[in-house]
Amino acid sequence: MTYCVGILLDQGVVLASDSRTNAGIDRVSTFRKMFTFERPGERFFTLLTAGNLSLTQGVVSLIGEWLESEDPEKDLYAAHSMFNAARIVGRALRTIHKTDAGYLQQHDVDFSASFVLAGQVRGGRLRLFQIYDAGNFIEAMGDTIYFQIGEVKYGKPILDRIVRHDTSLKDAAKCALISFDSTMRSNVSVGPPIDLMIYRRDTLQRAFTIRLEEDDPYWQELREGWGDAIHNAFENVGHDPGWEL
Amino acid sequence: MTYCVGILLDQGVVLASDSRTNAGIDRVSTFRKMFTFERPGERFFTLLTAGNLSLTQGVVSLIGEWLESEDPEKDLYAAHSMFNAARIVGRALRTIHKTDAGYLQQHDVDFSASFVLAGQVRGGRLRLFQIYDAGNFIEAMGDTIYFQIGEVKYGKPILDRIVRHDTSLKDAAKCALISFDSTMRSNVSVGPPIDLMIYRRDTLQRAFTIRLEEDDPYWQELREGWGDAIHNAFENVGHDPGWEL
Repeated sequence: MTYCVGILLDQGVVLASDSRTNAGIDRVSTFRKMFTFERPGERFFTLLTAGNLSLTQGVVSLIGEWLESEDPEKDLYAAHSMFNAARIVGRALRTIHKTDAGYLQQHDVDFSASFVLAGQVRGGRLRLFQIYDAGNFIEAMGDTIYFQIGEVKYGKPILDRIVRHDTSLKDAAKCALISFDSTMRSNVSVGPPIDLMIYRRDTLQRAFTIRLEEDDPYWQELREGWGDAIHNAFENVGHDPGWEL
Repeated sequence: MTYCVGILLDQGVVLASDSRTNAGIDRVSTFRKMFTFERPGERFFTLLTAGNLSLTQGVVSLIGEWLESEDPEKDLYAAHSMFNAARIVGRALRTIHKTDAGYLQQHDVDFSASFVLAGQVRGGRLRLFQIYDAGNFIEAMGDTIYFQIGEVKYGKPILDRIVRHDTSLKDAAKCALISFDSTMRSNVSVGPPIDLMIYRRDTLQRAFTIRLEEDDPYWQELREGWGDAIHNAFENVGHDPGWEL
């Protein structure tokens, strides 16, 4: 399984992904699920991936092969806009689908892959997209400021409670990490290291990336501190309802 | 959708269920999903239901019809043990399945229903079961002290963090209600009123039941208090990691 989240904020975007993949409990591996394509000062894209690893790797490879083709329908470095860029990801997914889906079906393997794409092209807005199995996509706007892919539910409540469009980048990153902690406690197939990236709006280059290993001191402090804080909060919330048991 | 949870504790058992059902967004109704069968001093059972409403209602009706038959394979009031009782629920589900599953399939409706059964028969232990679609079941034991059915994921992290076998009944009830709050915030198809029941071990009769409407003062205090507590906890957890953004 996988868990990835992208959060669009006034100040920029926060992206995080786990790196565990599994194909049965005896085939657990570590793979990066965050991929950045950038031309500093001109354009910046980061793609998060979830789903069948052969498919997502295929999509990332194809997007890589299309770079420098100078075809704005295929080349992220030639795309005119973020809308264009999201279509390129969808097109890569459909291309892989056309080649592989039939064979996968014969082996009862779902064709399942989804993506979060964040980025900005010079002269355009910072935008965040979620791209589905079928290559279609939606964009974060209004009250919807984050997208999750993979094992999304355990980590959703804390995002719903905390992040708003005016949350700071550091706070949103902290919230994303707590969301990962909640997910990892309830689903062993999501696991460290966690890749975290922060992009500051209009800079057109990545601001900050870190790979948090299991024993990272900040990550450990956050996990333990959050567990303790939840226990304290639980102790203190609500008066005795006076129920006669 | 539905959310139900049953928690088995040293002191007894806590059971809670929402009461929203929907068949498309324009057909949202309120139905009780908690059913108690008891002979005070002799036996006590509570059943929580999730899944296709016609199926779960059919199962509850059939269990009702089988009462007083004095057949220990069908009559909860004649069951020799909780194991026996769980088999009766499974048998009712299989009976409905035999009658209805084919027709449902013709209309592309999933045969999906699941149950949580808690109870105690005089001379036996208090036990908690989860009964699946196929009528088979598992029992809470060891570290597994709670079962959820329906929309289970959003409300799982708080249960994983808080409840232990020696948690008090009141604290477990509070935790169950917070688990409902997290679920209802992330999924609009789970909704109040919430039915809550607390059974004290070896009493062989229900200890406490309450139906918490949306405007119940304790429920409101808990929901607001918990939201505030999470915000405070979030503010205070973790030092500044010193990342250069």
